[in-house]
Amino acid sequence: MTPEIVTKISAYIWALDYGSVLVFALTGALVASRQQLDIIGFIFMAALTAVGGGTVRDLVLGRDPVFWVAQPELVVIAAGAAFVVYWTAHLLESRYRWLLWLDAIALGVAVPAGVGVAMAGDFGPVIIIIAGVITGTMGGLIRDVVGNEVPLILKGSELYLTCAFGGAVIALMLAWLGLPRPVALIGGGFATFLLRAGTLIWGWSLPVYKPRPPRTRG
Amino acid sequence: MTPEIVTKISAYIWALDYGSVLVFALTGALVASRQQLDIIGFIFMAALTAVGGGTVRDLVLGRDPVFWVAQPELVVIAAGAAFVVYWTAHLLESRYRWLLWLDAIALGVAVPAGVGVAMAGDFGPVIIIIAGVITGTMGGLIRDVVGNEVPLILKGSELYLTCAFGGAVIALMLAWLGLPRPVALIGGGFATFLLRAGTLIWGWSLPVYKPRPPRTRG
Amino acid sequence: MTPEIVTKISAYIWALDYGSVLVFALTGALVASRQQLDIIGFIFMAALTAVGGGTVRDLVLGRDPVFWVAQPELVVIAAGAAFVVYWTAHLLESRYRWLLWLDAIALGVAVPAGVGVAMAGDFGPVIIIIAGVITGTMGGLIRDVVGNEVPLILKGSELYLTCAFGGAVIALMLAWLGLPRPVALIGGGFATFLLRAGTLIWGWSLPVYKPRPPRTRG
Repeated sequence: MTPEIVTKISAYIWALDYGSVLVFALTGALVASRQQLDIIGFIFMAALTAVGGGTVRDLVLGRDPVFWVAQPELVVIAAGAAFVVYWTAHLLESRYRWLLWLDAIALGVAVPAGVGVAMAGDFGPVIIIIAGVITGTMGGLIRDVVGNEVPLILKGSELYLTCAFGGAVIALMLAWLGLPRPVALIGGGFATFLLRAGTLIWGWSLPVYKPRPPRTRG
Repeated sequence: MTPEIVTKISAYIWALDYGSVLVFALTGALVASRQQLDIIGFIFMAALTAVGGGTVRDLVLGRDPVFWVAQPELVVIAAGAAFVVYWTAHLLESRYRWLLWLDAIALGVAVPAGVGVAMAGDFGPVIIIIAGVITGTMGGLIRDVVGNEVPLILKGSELYLTCAFGGAVIALMLAWLGLPRPVALIGGGFATFLLRAGTLIWGWSLPVYKPRPPRTRG
Repeated sequence: MTPEIVTKISAYIWALDYGSVLVFALTGALVASRQQLDIIGFIFMAALTAVGGGTVRDLVLGRDPVFWVAQPELVVIAAGAAFVVYWTAHLLESRYRWLLWLDAIALGVAVPAGVGVAMAGDFGPVIIIIAGVITGTMGGLIRDVVGNEVPLILKGSELYLTCAFGGAVIALMLAWLGLPRPVALIGGGFATFLLRAGTLIWGWSLPVYKPRPPRTRG
């Protein structure tokens, strides 16, 4: 990514990256609490989750250095979130419920962050949508693989990927309709979150793949 | 990777990348069907498997941007493959058997694709072989780790890595013997597939590591 | 990473990379022996473990190409280590015990290797510490995820991450105190290893997260 493009990554995209780092860090720390790790383990899981998606996005788009190397205070924020969870997680009724809802918020912030970076890089629509989905989902996927949870994306009934995909498409379409880019991104983020919230509350789902029942024998 | 090297990535290497994306995408979608995901889950698993190996190859070799960011229609092809599998997988007798054989074909296309990119970048023989093995195996490895399957490379009896390694070495040797590069790559690809097919049909294997039996007590 | 910075990566940092590749390769091959793979599987697991941490470090710091692409003999060393383990692992009383101790040595070499590369790149303290932790822990994490072992970092009682973190901080502080960089790095490496050895011998640990016991019913 050439310097001129980097300067196009405006303040509001950085704000989205900060927000998604903070909330994803909380979810990583909650997984650490479910694994009964020590404080350094909390920080590691929080940081890995917080920057994982954006790191994959930046590597494939060729953004150099990746966002948190340019702004190391992002990792400090993730560490702070880990501390807060370490001292408060025992107060929560259901840590898994909190994990799901915080993850939904993080998804709603990270998807537009990914879309915004790819738009600033003048990539085409396919890459813009993929950048949104990667930024939204890869951090949580890494968190779940490393932290020994069933990845949320593998739960067919969760519509997880569909929310990320739908939100990225909506952000792109709002920008095409002529809305200012920050507004389009915020709209796409809200759409992502609302889709996911609907899934969590009302159990919205797409039909999942079900193999035909075996033939009954004559 | 400097522009002059990129221009050396000729049409036949792109053709190999297209082919490996298509067939690996089918295997990713089959794993999605085994996990009973929805259509977006099919697309995600198909795309992840299709571009995973080539992405790792391009990142470590410093090819910028990675191949599918330069040619986003590759991801559209993977999505199309996911649709086809979503609507047809129930017709298959044994999805796992199809998974194994499609994966064997994909391996036979992806290994020479990796070898070809590294040759175009004027890397040495060790890196050329590694690029072939990475391109051939990493997509399937990511598919299996994310999709909760036992990684094929961990099944000692499957000779999986040996086929990728052997095919890459053969492609390299054919090029050293003076054959035109496309011919050497296609030869290496066939060797990869035939080795793997032999493993699947006749159960070829190398001796696996077996610890000595425990000493019998006097 | 610009060429001038690459020249600042002096011989002693390369020596650390060589050492960590060798010892991590041994641990990867031991995991392969626990999975009963064939010789190519041993080489794959050894190489993956040996270069995994440094590869992630180099990708996020923007070092291009990654270290083992610039010095492919590192992969040959890893393959050699795999051969040695393949022929000798059956002689070991407890392969898991060897795995733990070799991993501790590798950690003590890889953490200063990561710190040294980031110092040579003139990064700030947060990134320097992260580079040390990544280089020390990512190779083993990839090894454990792929090789189906419980990741060492997830064992709360193992203080694994804390050792890497502590060693990186100590290397940084020794450099700040004015010690020559090679001395600071070696000091940080010894600190890493001694912390980890203490954990393994005396079971040192930080308090792990324990949810409050459920309220007793009246």
